[in-house]
Amino acid sequence: MESRSITTVIANDNKCQITWSDGQVSHFHALWLRDNCPCPECLHPQTRERVLDIMDVPQDLMMPTTIKIEAQNLAITWQDGHLSEFNASWLKDHCYSEHALQSRKEKLNFWNEDIARSIPEIDYDAIMQEDSGLLQWLDMMVEYGFAIVRNTPTIHGEVCKLAAKISFLKETNFGREFEVISKANPNNVAYTAISLKSHSDLPNWELPPGVQFLHCLKSEATGGESTLVDGFAVAEILRLENPEAFELLKSQAIPFRFHDEEWDLSHEAPTIGCNASGDYTDIRYHAALTAPLQIPSDNVLPFYQAYRALTNIIRAPENILELKLMPGDVMVFNNKRVLHGRAAFDPTSGDRRLEGCYVDNDAILSKRRVLRRKLQD
Amino acid sequence: MESRSITTVIANDNKCQITWSDGQVSHFHALWLRDNCPCPECLHPQTRERVLDIMDVPQDLMMPTTIKIEAQNLAITWQDGHLSEFNASWLKDHCYSEHALQSRKEKLNFWNEDIARSIPEIDYDAIMQEDSGLLQWLDMMVEYGFAIVRNTPTIHGEVCKLAAKISFLKETNFGREFEVISKANPNNVAYTAISLKSHSDLPNWELPPGVQFLHCLKSEATGGESTLVDGFAVAEILRLENPEAFELLKSQAIPFRFHDEEWDLSHEAPTIGCNASGDYTDIRYHAALTAPLQIPSDNVLPFYQAYRALTNIIRAPENILELKLMPGDVMVFNNKRVLHGRAAFDPTSGDRRLEGCYVDNDAILSKRRVLRRKLQD
Repeated sequence: MESRSITTVIANDNKCQITWSDGQVSHFHALWLRDNCPCPECLHPQTRERVLDIMDVPQDLMMPTTIKIEAQNLAITWQDGHLSEFNASWLKDHCYSEHALQSRKEKLNFWNEDIARSIPEIDYDAIMQEDSGLLQWLDMMVEYGFAIVRNTPTIHGEVCKLAAKISFLKETNFGREFEVISKANPNNVAYTAISLKSHSDLPNWELPPGVQFLHCLKSEATGGESTLVDGFAVAEILRLENPEAFELLKSQAIPFRFHDEEWDLSHEAPTIGCNASGDYTDIRYHAALTAPLQIPSDNVLPFYQAYRALTNIIRAPENILELKLMPGDVMVFNNKRVLHGRAAFDPTSGDRRLEGCYVDNDAILSKRRVLRRKLQD
Repeated sequence: MESRSITTVIANDNKCQITWSDGQVSHFHALWLRDNCPCPECLHPQTRERVLDIMDVPQDLMMPTTIKIEAQNLAITWQDGHLSEFNASWLKDHCYSEHALQSRKEKLNFWNEDIARSIPEIDYDAIMQEDSGLLQWLDMMVEYGFAIVRNTPTIHGEVCKLAAKISFLKETNFGREFEVISKANPNNVAYTAISLKSHSDLPNWELPPGVQFLHCLKSEATGGESTLVDGFAVAEILRLENPEAFELLKSQAIPFRFHDEEWDLSHEAPTIGCNASGDYTDIRYHAALTAPLQIPSDNVLPFYQAYRALTNIIRAPENILELKLMPGDVMVFNNKRVLHGRAAFDPTSGDRRLEGCYVDNDAILSKRRVLRRKLQD
């Protein structure tokens, strides 16, 4: 474990420099320290929410001369007499040097068809019986964006029990849980027997469902193989091969829409979502729900060209993981990262029945943090 | 009503130009028209989802020579013999000239304290009994970001019935419905009696709740006045007064976090959210849930400065609508646009009891579209 003892503190105007016993150095601004004072007057002791009003602190706050350093504690008495005591370990965890910020980023593992040789998978019992199994599953979900849960009881409603290990279910216009079978009067192409090319679900919502669960109950029909594509990996290929196309798909919002008698859900967003740091946040890709383009005329043909370039990468066999779900398998995937699809099936050759539900990505990440706290204590 | 009859069509290479009987002109690309062919082979007749695979159409598609124009219909026979027939009115609705794109943008009405003279309000019965009342309410919500529903029965659970006129409820870590009362062991400062400065709820979720409902059941305590601030209006003031601060709050993501025994919900996002077109999408502003800043060191002091500038505008009395909710009032507001707060109250002076719930903004907009379709037919 890295060292978390403080060796020296040097206060300099509105900042201080802490040297740790491993030789590493952190800088903290006086204002940042005052803002994060953990005393019960500044941080509500029960809710752990900030009560301090930063407007009561001068913007040009300087480091005071009264600083007490102990190996595991930094005690600062501010100019107005207020005392802030920081735990050294907490301070190190919240260092905001460029190196520290980089090292705390989530590690993602991009993949292609080769992942067929080592599919992220875990047994149903391991998840249901042990926190460590549950955490292992959530780690896979974050790293690869999907995992197959094996040997799940083939009972109606079981998929919701599995999802409930993480959180409440995310409701959508298709309900809280849904069945993927061929229906007589479908309101969605998923409820037919035709093939579904790789796509993301519900891009027409401001926030599409984060994680999708698809539980195979029956797999007797000919065809219907499932496919998965790592949307971040294919976006990255496009970025390297065709930067112009990438930039357009990242910056040009396009409209998505689903409408039936009861709903008319529409949202505009780019195909490739990135945050301000340039990290991928989501892929919205579903021709069925792409509304007629309402974008500047000059962008129309370039958009089709960029979309075609991305589609060629998405459909390249080397980027597709194909698998035949068998009864007891639950395919769980991050719908904002991983595209999914299925081959056409012949509904007269036997039953094909999947049950599905969604939970928010926030809930996955939250449960993972809670379990880490619990298991590391 | 504007004219929707076609006068002439001129095909030119990969585009066509339509002149309407009112003299207006639209341009459509051949590829766009082919992509949006409404025939049952290209658009699933039941699901109304696109079935056509654009990869089956050449990227350099030209306008064909066989175009039949009637006043209300445009029939195009493509080079491969496929026939696409477009309704003129539909085409005009989907024109993507710059003028057309601009004219279809939602009109928002920014406000300050002066709105106290004409508060957007509507009677409970008008919403529950007539689609036109429901639509009027939703229109207010979109234009002003809030509306007060008056004369709601002061019955436990009534607020959920009101929300159910729009959609299912959005569940969060605080449940599907919640009570705002002073609690003995609060896990959230809202459940105390202390004052709450203007803030947005749950910025620590990837997508904070869109619309919040707060139903006043009892209002006997001294104090506890509600406040609302138009977050888009104050952002716009900041943009004009202090463009540098505005740009930093728009571009620098900061971490938000809530954690208790069961949850550890954390998300990074900018304070002021704008889409690629520069339109405001959301304000995330809640000191209680702002985690210790984990941002590049050079941005720390400028961030505090920008945050202070925004806070001064948010707290300026001329930007605050103050109102005392009385039993039967439901304050409904867009939590991504409108900040809310309350004065401290004295829990020993009488009961103060609010019941609340959330729905997604998507659901508001969806219901509004469905009602418009229905009422305009």
